[in-house]
Amino acid sequence: MHGYTMDKDDYLKRLKRIEGQVRGLQRMVDEDVYCIDILTQVSAATKALQSVAVGLLDQHVRHCVSNAIANDPDEADRMITEATRAIERLVKS
Amino acid sequence: MHGYTMDKDDYLKRLKRIEGQVRGLQRMVDEDVYCIDILTQVSAATKALQSVAVGLLDQHVRHCVSNAIANDPDEADRMITEATRAIERLVKS
Amino acid sequence: MHGYTMDKDDYLKRLKRIEGQVRGLQRMVDEDVYCIDILTQVSAATKALQSVAVGLLDQHVRHCVSNAIANDPDEADRMITEATRAIERLVKS
Amino acid sequence: MHGYTMDKDDYLKRLKRIEGQVRGLQRMVDEDVYCIDILTQVSAATKALQSVAVGLLDQHVRHCVSNAIANDPDEADRMITEATRAIERLVKS
Repeated sequence: MHGYTMDKDDYLKRLKRIEGQVRGLQRMVDEDVYCIDILTQVSAATKALQSVAVGLLDQHVRHCVSNAIANDPDEADRMITEATRAIERLVKS
Repeated sequence: MHGYTMDKDDYLKRLKRIEGQVRGLQRMVDEDVYCIDILTQVSAATKALQSVAVGLLDQHVRHCVSNAIANDPDEADRMITEATRAIERLVKS
Repeated sequence: MHGYTMDKDDYLKRLKRIEGQVRGLQRMVDEDVYCIDILTQVSAATKALQSVAVGLLDQHVRHCVSNAIANDPDEADRMITEATRAIERLVKS
Repeated sequence: MHGYTMDKDDYLKRLKRIEGQVRGLQRMVDEDVYCIDILTQVSAATKALQSVAVGLLDQHVRHCVSNAIANDPDEADRMITEATRAIERLVKS
């Protein structure tokens, strides 16, 4: 059980849609669509991925980190450090 | 014919790999993998998409925009404005 | 008292350095330095700002949010929502 | 003379304002303002910097790169590679 478990179906649906966007990108490249139109679709897929990440992170802090804070301070400390590293990677990608 | 046409196979291969990463994300969510590990994979897919975008943009300026500059200044102007909007969307996604 | 209070001097030093970078940018523009060199310095200042933000966020979760989780669950909930909005703004800037 | 030269005053004004935002951040940290409010201001300064960068890049392609394309193809090639590296740094910061 993790923070996102209760919204699993929603995440699966969103990732399915992103998979469709990436397949759409392949079709666009294959059909020689105009570069800028491909870039617009790349930005849309990127934004959708980033928004999945922000959602996972929110639920991670709200559930996993909160549980650890209540029950195991050392574990909580480790988890917050991990979460910060994850935010760092997101901000830089 | 667009800037990326000569590297079409390379782009298709990279997008295929990103599609695989997104399918991997669905498997991870489905199997209740730890949130932070999913986030690491989301960042990897995002970085890969951004890098496809930077490549497309490079070739767009190198070929499409360069051609327009040589042949049709007004068209070049429009294309540079479009490219700037695309960069803006990338930077903010 | 907030999460960052104990590292106040460090943050002030980092922000002072960023202020210097931004003043350096003004000098560069004023002296007609080559565009790309200015862009390199803009990226450095942006990265430095983002890194201040990630540090503040880490300490916010580690101290302010952790305190609230232990003492006031409703307040904790509100703070996590705020933190998520802040991450969202960071990721998109 | 570079792409941005004709808008020098506008860039200087925007950078002056960003310098003010960074000084405001120091005041906020010094006065123990709430973490999230500081983060909001960091995002505003970051966005303002990124928008200066996108503007500089637009004018770099529109003027410097365009000139090189018309007069010196090898130089143009080098400049486009530089611009792509600059975009890459922006996207990742």
